[in-house]
Amino acid sequence: MEDSHYTIHFLPNDITVEIEPGKTVLDASYKGDLFINALCGGDGTCGKCKVILQSGKTQRRPSSHISVEEAEKGYVLACKTLIDDNLEVFIPEESRLDKSRILVGDNMLFSGSQAAINPGVEQFKHAPLINKIYLELPRPTMDDNMADYERLCQGISSETTISAEKLSIHLAVLKQLPALLRSSDWKITVTLANRCPLFEIIEVQPGDVSANNYGIAVDIGTTTVVAHLINLSTTETIDAEATYNSQIKYGDDYIQRIMYAAQNNAMEMMHEMLTEDVNHLISTLVKRNTLNIHNVNAVVCAGNTVMTHFLMGLDPTNIRKEPYLPVVNIIAPIRASEIDVRINSHGLLYTLPCVGAYVGGDISAGVLSIRLDKAEALSLLIDIGTNGEIVLGNKDWLVCCSASAGPSFEGSGISCGMRAAKGAIEKITITPDFDVMYKTIGDAPPSGICGSGLLECLANLVRSGVIDRTGNFQKGIKTERLRSTDNGQEFLLVDRKETAKKKDIIITQADIQNLIRSKAAIYSAISTLLESMGMDVESIEQVYLAGGFGSYLDAKSAVTIGMLPDIEIAKVHFVGNTSIIGAKMTLFSAEAHEVAKEIGTKMTYIDLMSNNKYMEEYVSANFLPHTNIEKFPSVAEELMVSKK
Amino acid sequence: MEDSHYTIHFLPNDITVEIEPGKTVLDASYKGDLFINALCGGDGTCGKCKVILQSGKTQRRPSSHISVEEAEKGYVLACKTLIDDNLEVFIPEESRLDKSRILVGDNMLFSGSQAAINPGVEQFKHAPLINKIYLELPRPTMDDNMADYERLCQGISSETTISAEKLSIHLAVLKQLPALLRSSDWKITVTLANRCPLFEIIEVQPGDVSANNYGIAVDIGTTTVVAHLINLSTTETIDAEATYNSQIKYGDDYIQRIMYAAQNNAMEMMHEMLTEDVNHLISTLVKRNTLNIHNVNAVVCAGNTVMTHFLMGLDPTNIRKEPYLPVVNIIAPIRASEIDVRINSHGLLYTLPCVGAYVGGDISAGVLSIRLDKAEALSLLIDIGTNGEIVLGNKDWLVCCSASAGPSFEGSGISCGMRAAKGAIEKITITPDFDVMYKTIGDAPPSGICGSGLLECLANLVRSGVIDRTGNFQKGIKTERLRSTDNGQEFLLVDRKETAKKKDIIITQADIQNLIRSKAAIYSAISTLLESMGMDVESIEQVYLAGGFGSYLDAKSAVTIGMLPDIEIAKVHFVGNTSIIGAKMTLFSAEAHEVAKEIGTKMTYIDLMSNNKYMEEYVSANFLPHTNIEKFPSVAEELMVSKK
Repeated sequence: MEDSHYTIHFLPNDITVEIEPGKTVLDASYKGDLFINALCGGDGTCGKCKVILQSGKTQRRPSSHISVEEAEKGYVLACKTLIDDNLEVFIPEESRLDKSRILVGDNMLFSGSQAAINPGVEQFKHAPLINKIYLELPRPTMDDNMADYERLCQGISSETTISAEKLSIHLAVLKQLPALLRSSDWKITVTLANRCPLFEIIEVQPGDVSANNYGIAVDIGTTTVVAHLINLSTTETIDAEATYNSQIKYGDDYIQRIMYAAQNNAMEMMHEMLTEDVNHLISTLVKRNTLNIHNVNAVVCAGNTVMTHFLMGLDPTNIRKEPYLPVVNIIAPIRASEIDVRINSHGLLYTLPCVGAYVGGDISAGVLSIRLDKAEALSLLIDIGTNGEIVLGNKDWLVCCSASAGPSFEGSGISCGMRAAKGAIEKITITPDFDVMYKTIGDAPPSGICGSGLLECLANLVRSGVIDRTGNFQKGIKTERLRSTDNGQEFLLVDRKETAKKKDIIITQADIQNLIRSKAAIYSAISTLLESMGMDVESIEQVYLAGGFGSYLDAKSAVTIGMLPDIEIAKVHFVGNTSIIGAKMTLFSAEAHEVAKEIGTKMTYIDLMSNNKYMEEYVSANFLPHTNIEKFPSVAEELMVSKK
Repeated sequence: MEDSHYTIHFLPNDITVEIEPGKTVLDASYKGDLFINALCGGDGTCGKCKVILQSGKTQRRPSSHISVEEAEKGYVLACKTLIDDNLEVFIPEESRLDKSRILVGDNMLFSGSQAAINPGVEQFKHAPLINKIYLELPRPTMDDNMADYERLCQGISSETTISAEKLSIHLAVLKQLPALLRSSDWKITVTLANRCPLFEIIEVQPGDVSANNYGIAVDIGTTTVVAHLINLSTTETIDAEATYNSQIKYGDDYIQRIMYAAQNNAMEMMHEMLTEDVNHLISTLVKRNTLNIHNVNAVVCAGNTVMTHFLMGLDPTNIRKEPYLPVVNIIAPIRASEIDVRINSHGLLYTLPCVGAYVGGDISAGVLSIRLDKAEALSLLIDIGTNGEIVLGNKDWLVCCSASAGPSFEGSGISCGMRAAKGAIEKITITPDFDVMYKTIGDAPPSGICGSGLLECLANLVRSGVIDRTGNFQKGIKTERLRSTDNGQEFLLVDRKETAKKKDIIITQADIQNLIRSKAAIYSAISTLLESMGMDVESIEQVYLAGGFGSYLDAKSAVTIGMLPDIEIAKVHFVGNTSIIGAKMTLFSAEAHEVAKEIGTKMTYIDLMSNNKYMEEYVSANFLPHTNIEKFPSVAEELMVSKK
């Protein structure tokens, strides 16, 4: 070890990192591949990256996020603690990013989802973007002396519907062709990549190895990256793996990351972080299933527009400046090696088409996954991840927008908010006599509240009358849980005796206003889309909730707080990680890839920021559930009952 | 200088080469980029690489090609002289390869050739394979917030007939796009490469630089490589340059080179030699015209099938083994950098389509250049280079073959034969009283006879009665020019007093038989093609002679010796280097490129070696002009007159 480096020992993981002085404990954690929750990207503003210093001296910057009590126990903010000694650092449960709740998605939804959701829609036929075909070519003779490549094309044409004019071949493969055809006695397996409208022969192998054909579907989220390993010859999902997006350290939302990259000339670094995340997932999946990476021929990525830009190495700077322009929406397939994604060296990487700056490939994947583009019924797709994107439409038209919901449902900006990780309160009930019942992820002692818990909490606060419809704590509530502090009133959810950190879990007036702003953004986005089509809430026949938060929330509570319009709960369906499902459908079926492009082109993007109607709606929606209670008859009734 | 190296000083070029001991003088000449005539590729069999040793000692292997008289003057064979001393070597005129007579081709033939030759045929419209278009894109606004790439595509579509779906972009160009569009105030020049049926945007530059668009047309012959520099925005031919094919040192014909490459694991070296020849021509043209190589966007190469294989780095081994298979006939455009051809780093390289193992892209270029595929008249195209390829047909059908004429018309295997270089006898007449009149290239003292001279010589020998119709010297000819030697009879053409080497220029009985075999191969190929279509000589309406030899020969003499069938001389047209003309037409016009592919597909290749009829015809054609004189009525008449 060099003198100028220090050793940081992280517990409970027992991981040791060597790092130069002057770096922060957060930097050291990234070096050790440990994910510490740092929603603000290391600014010191979110206060989520608390760790316990067990030995060693540090220079700490004071932080209002650390109470005197915590400071005594050794709590520090990892992002604000500079290293100038060897340290032993304990990462408490609530500061860990836990991969177990990343919405990995499952296979069930593929095989039957389109039919189940939109029963009239024909399934895509199994024709993977990259296909392996076994061929026994006729041996050449003086009477049949076609050139090797033309013979190969003829063989392919006779086994498929692809004419020779639509075929091309990688020069490196062409070079090997004559020797290979002869050594294999003209019995070969051809790997055909769809580069619509053409097909490229990316490999020729001796014998029948057509079953060795794998693909990777990737959902590149702002927060998490999920990959599925697929057997392309059977459509089976073999395995799945997820990780946090390494860019998290440079900002919780993608606008922060664009700014960081622009100011620090770090566009290339951002790009490499993402490709390395993808490579890490691929290599984990390949190793765990003892496959040869050479047999992984295709990667399909679905991500929002900014993530798609970073992945491809494209500068997203103009996305955050008026008039908010992406470099490109629909990107043609590239060789994965062009962006250093490591699969078969001739393999291709496809992306799902983006619609505009704030509606990306994850959403076109979502529309594809439920075949909203073929729906008879007027449907609403709501994907609430780090952002909230909403699509309204049916087989005839599709409009979409992005709601700046902010990350409060991911726990950011909320005193006891946290990501959906072990120990997070995910379900909560407040009884009429202000008792609180809750359930945590993994049934661990509670550390904080995640999005679905926060939503239920808000609904229960209003149902139980703790807060009024403006979100303010009601006067005259008879419970010790409601108490005043220097920072205003707060409601005690869980007493410190029960919590993991031995610290009260509370919700403050400021938290409530944050959550109301977030839900108002989603509601007003929905009503602006409806308005733009001259429709109202009654027109909505189906609602599909997608994404991590969307899959765990309680629909009734979402209506109660006015995040969703007042619709029958039976119309609400949870559709999971539609981004990865759409990516998988594309991998399996070139036809689905074409449809995704049509969807990308067909969707009309409505910019909310420049929409006056939206601002009006937003203001009216900053109530529980809404300024105009008549828009929420079921809630009106419910609240009357509960207030009785 | 290292001790283990010797210095070879070549005169008259005054070029000094350092080389290790054990190498030959021929090796040293190649190292100095000096082209010494070595038709046999350094086997010592052709005896053409004579040089004069002016100082230094060497180990020479005895050669029957060096007379005692020559040995006294210091003549040695460069290929058989091993170096173990510093040497001064003089390369005499007749041993030099002279680039001045490489059929570079000219522009005249392009602009009007198709129309002049086949008047009914519409000219191709000017639409180069790689095009530069100046665009002023509308600046984006909130109401027109299309992504940068989609805006670019819309701009292209509005200026051309190319729809957005047919466009793709190089990822590196896409990366630069957002900054470039903004810094150029949305006024840009786009370089569009035709990758039929798609188009690739290979460059975007600020401002209007659409005039800076150049291309290179290359004729890759077995012996010579010719390149033309073209202004693609005007179709003007700016300059031309030629060189000898560097592979010459490994064999005069391509079969020898295939064998050399296979036996010496030298496929890659053969490939590199060719690409370096092309690079050398391109860089010479670019420098001489003070252009930026970055503005050279396209290269179109026309070559026979083996040269096309070597160029692309494809193994041509199976071309010389039954059933004679190329790796590929029609090759899709590649990025020039893929085979290390140095132009714009994103520029493309196109090849003219081959028809089969022995009829290549030079011939499809030839057919294209005279629009034989549109001819109303039944036409014959004969391209006599190192090989002789023949096409018969019209707008309805095309058949072709390769005649193994051998290289005797390039001077190989003929005592005083030489390539068409300064001092070569190119025209010759033998008077009825056996006097000889001649004209040399450059009017220099004669050094030998080139192809056109040999053909006239043979015709004149038979016209003057020196030889009979079997090719044997007639008995009882009263001239001292006809004399006997240890190796049989020979006819003195030029006395040593007049010659450059002070050595008699003669033609021997063996020479005459060699020439007869060559002309018989061409004649019997023509008649086999006619026969295969159930036609005879009378059906031929037009004959086009192409290639180096074909452009200088005397048509009447070609009929007299029976190389061409007995047709009206007025039907014979000299069309020059049709290989480069076809390549240029392709560069100028994407439509021509499509037609070339159709031609490649449309032509039926007839293999002569497996054709019994051909062998019969060949035997009958081993006479002057033919066993059956009735097939040559004009010659019968001519010879009667001359014998009178």
